[in-house]
Amino acid sequence: MNRYWSSLTKSLQPYIPGEQTKGQSFIKLNTNENPFSPPRAVIDAINKASCDLRLYPPPEADFLRESIATNFSLTKDEVFVGNGSDEILGFCFPAFFENDKPILFPDITYSFYKVYATLFKVNYKLVPLDDEYRIVPETFTQKNGGIIIANPNAPTGICLSIAEIEIILKNNPNSVVMIDEAYIDFGGTTAVRLIPKYDNLLVIQTLSKSRSLAGLRVGFALGNASLIEALTRIKNSFNSYTLDRLAIAGAIASFNENDYFEKTRKEIMAVRDETANALQKLGFRVLPSKANFLFVSHERIAAKVLFAKLQAAGILVRYFDAPRIDNFLRITIGTAQDMRDLIVNLRMIIGRV
Amino acid sequence: MNRYWSSLTKSLQPYIPGEQTKGQSFIKLNTNENPFSPPRAVIDAINKASCDLRLYPPPEADFLRESIATNFSLTKDEVFVGNGSDEILGFCFPAFFENDKPILFPDITYSFYKVYATLFKVNYKLVPLDDEYRIVPETFTQKNGGIIIANPNAPTGICLSIAEIEIILKNNPNSVVMIDEAYIDFGGTTAVRLIPKYDNLLVIQTLSKSRSLAGLRVGFALGNASLIEALTRIKNSFNSYTLDRLAIAGAIASFNENDYFEKTRKEIMAVRDETANALQKLGFRVLPSKANFLFVSHERIAAKVLFAKLQAAGILVRYFDAPRIDNFLRITIGTAQDMRDLIVNLRMIIGRV
Repeated sequence: MNRYWSSLTKSLQPYIPGEQTKGQSFIKLNTNENPFSPPRAVIDAINKASCDLRLYPPPEADFLRESIATNFSLTKDEVFVGNGSDEILGFCFPAFFENDKPILFPDITYSFYKVYATLFKVNYKLVPLDDEYRIVPETFTQKNGGIIIANPNAPTGICLSIAEIEIILKNNPNSVVMIDEAYIDFGGTTAVRLIPKYDNLLVIQTLSKSRSLAGLRVGFALGNASLIEALTRIKNSFNSYTLDRLAIAGAIASFNENDYFEKTRKEIMAVRDETANALQKLGFRVLPSKANFLFVSHERIAAKVLFAKLQAAGILVRYFDAPRIDNFLRITIGTAQDMRDLIVNLRMIIGRV
Repeated sequence: MNRYWSSLTKSLQPYIPGEQTKGQSFIKLNTNENPFSPPRAVIDAINKASCDLRLYPPPEADFLRESIATNFSLTKDEVFVGNGSDEILGFCFPAFFENDKPILFPDITYSFYKVYATLFKVNYKLVPLDDEYRIVPETFTQKNGGIIIANPNAPTGICLSIAEIEIILKNNPNSVVMIDEAYIDFGGTTAVRLIPKYDNLLVIQTLSKSRSLAGLRVGFALGNASLIEALTRIKNSFNSYTLDRLAIAGAIASFNENDYFEKTRKEIMAVRDETANALQKLGFRVLPSKANFLFVSHERIAAKVLFAKLQAAGILVRYFDAPRIDNFLRITIGTAQDMRDLIVNLRMIIGRV
């Protein structure tokens, strides 16, 4: 603390991302990264773009927005791009929310939503998941100043259907409803098709997970052109060029490589389902996941103990010391070999405890 | 406008960056980019880093911060890095300023400062430059909630001495004083040496101008560790990973290439001074610049007219339609050949009007 800090700075409780390893050799199943590298064409596009680095990037990243629009059968005006989907979420708070009306999000979800609310001084109300850790659409019909739903939800991995999303949209014609689809490509159905029908719907996706580009920092939002314009106004009041030339070039190339995208995401889903079976045989409760991670709880051994023992064995997973989920581990789906190593190690750990 | 926009979104008047050309072949002297490409080692480092793009970047960019710290004889804790210096300026507002106390900056300066103030609801008071367009340090002694000085100032190019900066620091022990040194490497003296003496001093620099990396989006702030911690708290409440892996790798490589840096910045200063002489001979008033641009006004022909005629001739410069400076042009220093072309074209235009 310091006398030069604003009262806001003093009040913050910043988000803590999953650990990045430095030097040590870990099997890294803690930050939901993709086990596959991005396709060669992405690397080539980046290398080509590195020639123009003396020049500013195009501030509105028009070519990238056109490329994303084409991919989703939308127009460029319905696409916003940002420095990771986290930045876009951060822009949504001042763009759409007022500090007098509480926004709604689940009690168990991406923990960054609370952090944004504190930073932007927006009140929020937590809506409890049911006993099976599911979002109940009908609980999002109370009065609110906005709604955020992660779908699939994090860290549970459980996904709502389009019909369930539509219940929330229909009941909230006066609020912006943000659907954070960071993990949608691993088995869920995107709400993008509802955009023409609901002008209060904003869908947010990222290239960090299903497109293997966590290190490039590119996310995007899809919605009615007027919602996109609000985000653009916030961005242009904060930072004209949030995406560098290399990120723009790599992201465009990524959307031209849909065969690779299909192949790798299906492989991850197959490995996820095998891993879920193997974990159940070891006595784990496994929540039904449509994400590239599993959220699991052992019948006998505390999650915190398993977390520490896996780390000692060279395997990093994620543990959240938070109400209702402090006996769960979130395990990212790595390669088939990573997951075999995980199961072998867990079998030994469980046998010993 | 839209019923889903927040009242804040409706109130914004976003910053408008200089035009980026699409396709057409212009001599581009409008956004203060460096005419020299970054050194080969930067491109090589980026290409090498592109192998790890599936993984998140290190969230605090420790290696880059260490590299910058070494370059300025500081410690890593005294360095903050961001997605361009614009993002860092954006973080400074909520980190250090309260909305009840007006902050001070010059009436003629980087026009983004006003935009941030609106976005973060911070009141400000404009402090007039003198009749020679100079910042007068003694005018920054009035009561305030913070101070921002661009040094050299934009778009004038005029630079304060360290002694003058110190007058401002000495008279404001209760305010954070931000010195925005985007253009400092073109002839000014950085205030970094004052950091050990003043814990209220934050120096902000960028790799966009003197290090030829406008397209990579890397800026940094230097100051007392407690000021840096405040910025880190804001960043981690907004976006954990603002710098992608390629930006981190390229920036580290840039700080290892100081010979190239010295050679290119000196060449730009030499071309600037020759261009200033040539412009004076054509009847221009040229403000004394320590930046990579000149701010000039013709004795006879309106700036707006010259701006349009240069554009028609394929040369882009910057014109600001704002009080006190609406008869000036801001001209970026390009290559020696770019500047010869500029002078030839101006001579023809002036001869004809």
